[in-house]
Amino acid sequence: MTIIIHGLAASTCTSRVVATLIEKEVVDYVIEPVDLVSGAHKKPEYLALQPFGVIPVIQDGDLTLFESRAIARYICDKYANQGTALYGSSLTDRAKVEQWLEVESQNFHLPIGTAVFELVFKGYRGLTTDDSVVEANLSKLSSVLDIYEVHLSKNKYLAGDFFSLADLSHLPYLHYLIHVAKKGDVVTSKKHVNAWWEDISSRPSWKKVLELMAGN
Amino acid sequence: MTIIIHGLAASTCTSRVVATLIEKEVVDYVIEPVDLVSGAHKKPEYLALQPFGVIPVIQDGDLTLFESRAIARYICDKYANQGTALYGSSLTDRAKVEQWLEVESQNFHLPIGTAVFELVFKGYRGLTTDDSVVEANLSKLSSVLDIYEVHLSKNKYLAGDFFSLADLSHLPYLHYLIHVAKKGDVVTSKKHVNAWWEDISSRPSWKKVLELMAGN
Ligand SMILES: N[C@@H](CCC(=O)N[C@@H](CS)C(=O)NCC(=O)O)C(=O)O
Ligand SMILES: N[C@@H](CCC(=O)N[C@@H](CS)C(=O)NCC(=O)O)C(=O)O
Repeated sequence: MTIIIHGLAASTCTSRVVATLIEKEVVDYVIEPVDLVSGAHKKPEYLALQPFGVIPVIQDGDLTLFESRAIARYICDKYANQGTALYGSSLTDRAKVEQWLEVESQNFHLPIGTAVFELVFKGYRGLTTDDSVVEANLSKLSSVLDIYEVHLSKNKYLAGDFFSLADLSHLPYLHYLIHVAKKGDVVTSKKHVNAWWEDISSRPSWKKVLELMAGN
Repeated sequence: MTIIIHGLAASTCTSRVVATLIEKEVVDYVIEPVDLVSGAHKKPEYLALQPFGVIPVIQDGDLTLFESRAIARYICDKYANQGTALYGSSLTDRAKVEQWLEVESQNFHLPIGTAVFELVFKGYRGLTTDDSVVEANLSKLSSVLDIYEVHLSKNKYLAGDFFSLADLSHLPYLHYLIHVAKKGDVVTSKKHVNAWWEDISSRPSWKKVLELMAGN
């Protein structure tokens, strides 16, 4: 059964889902574009699938599922026996993956998401970037990444010695900050964080996501 | 092996973990209080366990684990065959639980956490509540709960017809908003949200958490 992803390949949250599908070697999916410009995500048909009016949401047979990190977890559980072991190989591996997924969601996402919104997405909507908001959030992000720096000096990946869903989940916003907003200093100035970013962003799965992003 | 929880029973994030342990019928745990007033959570010994300097963090044998929602998931996975089935009973049940856990973490937590911080925790630190911040965040929270209201008019619990980790994860901040800050109108004015709150907060597990909170 084809998994239908209502979203946009170029959007951060959709790309988190697509990267997971590729790592898990799931090929039977299709992206149904949602026209954010015309407000398709606020129309009743869309709200029936995703009541908060944001992308993405997937349909997999009878299951309708939203929230990108929940969709990513579902894909990892459903396809546990194929592709990259994004949860590692034990209960404690999975616990560590969940720990760093939560750090991404609770500590990393808000400052980087706010900075990228100011630097990139506001421009798409004809709004003006507030430099003081950018600065405050990049400073918060830098403090969070200082803790990553120490951790990544002792561990190749966030959850240990294996690439996991926790690493993957950081890719979309890091990409936008570094390559679209060109404000990657907080990453590239930190030796181990930068080596980690270079490693995870050069995976074939992420390169494929970038091709899909460019074609959107 | 006794699970050691470094935290405080009265803290929101610690109580999420304790409620999960009780629902999963895990009795072999102990809370080691962390003295936030003297800044014990910013001292090197604590930062070696939790580098972000917040509570809680657990030790379960060789495993050290932080982030309350990650700890709760770990307990559900480790004790899958005992206590309440907090992930439901199928892959799609679990997907729905994860979806609503993410809604809690991404949409509900920030406005309610900010309001409770202003209304309650700032007072503990001798700081003054900013009423405009409270109002703005209660208004955001109310919009989020409007979506819950529609959903809970058709579903007894967030993930469907079973009490899950997603419901449980909402309890700590709802308790503080309603019973400590006494600002529960955004909850109690919504018929189905209020019925859900009354239901989940009257579970024996949560009553036991409240006893522990009071004794802390
Ligand atoms: N927590 C949600 C966030 C979804 C989200 O914010 N999506 C953005 C695109 S990345 C969106 O739909 N924005 C349009 C809008 O807010 O109007 C998830 O991870 O799926
Ligand atoms: N995302 C973390 C948040 C932990 C957190 O913010 N803990 C608070 C108590 S609920 C804390 O330690 N505050 C003390 C401080 O920030 O100095 C979790 O869920 O475990």
